[in-house]
Amino acid sequence: MVEDRASHSGPAIFERIAVLGAGLIGSSIARAARKSGAARSIALCDHSPEIVTRARQLALADDYFVSAREAVRGADLVVFCVPVGANAELAEQVGKDLESGATVSDVGSVKGAVVAAIKDWLPEGVHFVPAHPVAGTEQSGPDAGFASLFSNRWCILTPPENTDPEAVDRVRRLWSAFGSNVEIMTPEHHDLVLAITSHVPHLIAYNIVGTAADLEEVTRSEVIKFSAGGFRDFTRIAASDPTMWRDVFLHNKDAVLEMLGRFTEDLTALQRMIRRGDGDGLFDLFTRTRAIRRNIVDLGQETRAPDFGRRVLDEGDKGQ
Amino acid sequence: MVEDRASHSGPAIFERIAVLGAGLIGSSIARAARKSGAARSIALCDHSPEIVTRARQLALADDYFVSAREAVRGADLVVFCVPVGANAELAEQVGKDLESGATVSDVGSVKGAVVAAIKDWLPEGVHFVPAHPVAGTEQSGPDAGFASLFSNRWCILTPPENTDPEAVDRVRRLWSAFGSNVEIMTPEHHDLVLAITSHVPHLIAYNIVGTAADLEEVTRSEVIKFSAGGFRDFTRIAASDPTMWRDVFLHNKDAVLEMLGRFTEDLTALQRMIRRGDGDGLFDLFTRTRAIRRNIVDLGQETRAPDFGRRVLDEGDKGQ
Repeated sequence: MVEDRASHSGPAIFERIAVLGAGLIGSSIARAARKSGAARSIALCDHSPEIVTRARQLALADDYFVSAREAVRGADLVVFCVPVGANAELAEQVGKDLESGATVSDVGSVKGAVVAAIKDWLPEGVHFVPAHPVAGTEQSGPDAGFASLFSNRWCILTPPENTDPEAVDRVRRLWSAFGSNVEIMTPEHHDLVLAITSHVPHLIAYNIVGTAADLEEVTRSEVIKFSAGGFRDFTRIAASDPTMWRDVFLHNKDAVLEMLGRFTEDLTALQRMIRRGDGDGLFDLFTRTRAIRRNIVDLGQETRAPDFGRRVLDEGDKGQ
Repeated sequence: MVEDRASHSGPAIFERIAVLGAGLIGSSIARAARKSGAARSIALCDHSPEIVTRARQLALADDYFVSAREAVRGADLVVFCVPVGANAELAEQVGKDLESGATVSDVGSVKGAVVAAIKDWLPEGVHFVPAHPVAGTEQSGPDAGFASLFSNRWCILTPPENTDPEAVDRVRRLWSAFGSNVEIMTPEHHDLVLAITSHVPHLIAYNIVGTAADLEEVTRSEVIKFSAGGFRDFTRIAASDPTMWRDVFLHNKDAVLEMLGRFTEDLTALQRMIRRGDGDGLFDLFTRTRAIRRNIVDLGQETRAPDFGRRVLDEGDKGQ
């Protein structure tokens, strides 16, 4: 019966996946595991009984748990899908209940601190393959997830040295079955890459939305009305889950501060160009940055439609 | 025949509109004027013969010109649709050819400097009603325009004191016919509002894309692959027209530097929270910023769909 739903070729990759945390990412993993047939059965757990009830209504899994310790029993893959700061406690909680030979993974946007936090709680004979699917939306909770969230997105694995290659390979195959492209790198390099591609962008988006909200000369209503000039793009990522992002900044402090330092240096140089009226300097930068967008679009990481395709254009509008 | 295409009620608002500049905004105005029936005839001009040829292929207007002086003859409304820095020269060029009683308008994203640049070149008896439609996409040129670009967007008018109220009213009715909501404010207030809702957001988007491009530790290819984590949102506005944006920063220097100063102060405070591990401070800011997005969505200035609706979700994915 599971086979009927399978979209990846070959037998299930895991007998039973326990997904700990039924938010946007956890619920999407449950859906993708079901849809791809990559797991024979799915255990879904959340510490909130309301969220478990909702997950059950959505029929996201085979079995539902409020207790993580119960959820991991019999699972050959356990995926931590909680905010970065909650991993250590969760690992401590379930460590002794993990099956021998099982693999533990996670989905955290920070790897160095998370690997350190989880690792010591895992018993001998349990494999650890940290993962970060670089995908998401600004929405949260089990209703926000969908099976194709990871499709054509990258997933980064950061296995500690000497991890069993077979365990790494199974986790890789799982993400491939979800439609992701998989890369392997060190936790340190991951944290630097994500600081610039994700963490600092979120930080400056949160920051400008905060700056705008606090102005006295410009009313909140004006900010909202005239947001189509560019501001509203920033509000999307500044609407992301506050707990998740607080934890990201607390746990990837060094790389974020390093990249933020570079951003600020560059911004100071740009500020000076404006103050001095250096039009050529501005023009050069603005021309260079256009090319990056083209690359992102060409590599399928972004829609080609203008304005993110926010508006479905009436093609009849294009001519007369 | 024009009446057949009219979607606004009542007779044409202008006999003949001359649109000077056939880029994204100018070509969209020509299309919207045609579609709404707000003008009996449309003259479209661009200093580039290639763009004029393309505009003619797209059948955007009734008459086509490379010479702005010829284009404005017989027009009761002349709209400057050129980069902010090109307005003064254009005004000097066409000043003497404007019809007595005609109205001149523009679409510039900066108002103080533009009003000053244009005003002195206009003869007695010509009205001046500066305008800024707060709408656009990251694309440029006559092919990028569309008639509904201004629909449900705000258009800001900044008429100098003592402008003929009838001229202001006709320009207001024109933008209403294009589907815009019209507001009137002073050029100075406009420039402050737009500095925070548009100019500084563009500046920091250009800046972070530049910072990422210049890193040695993180390759260009990594930035592109993992851009779905947030960065790619910034690349959209950092792909906007370099000439237009250079001119915006050169001509709205004071307000941009003022707002940038506040942004930087706030960012420094945020940086300190991260350095000190102030999780509560981060959480508070991240919670506050969520509310702004909700307001923007509720007021119809943004799509409700997650991730800007970039992906059409398969609703079958939502449950099992």
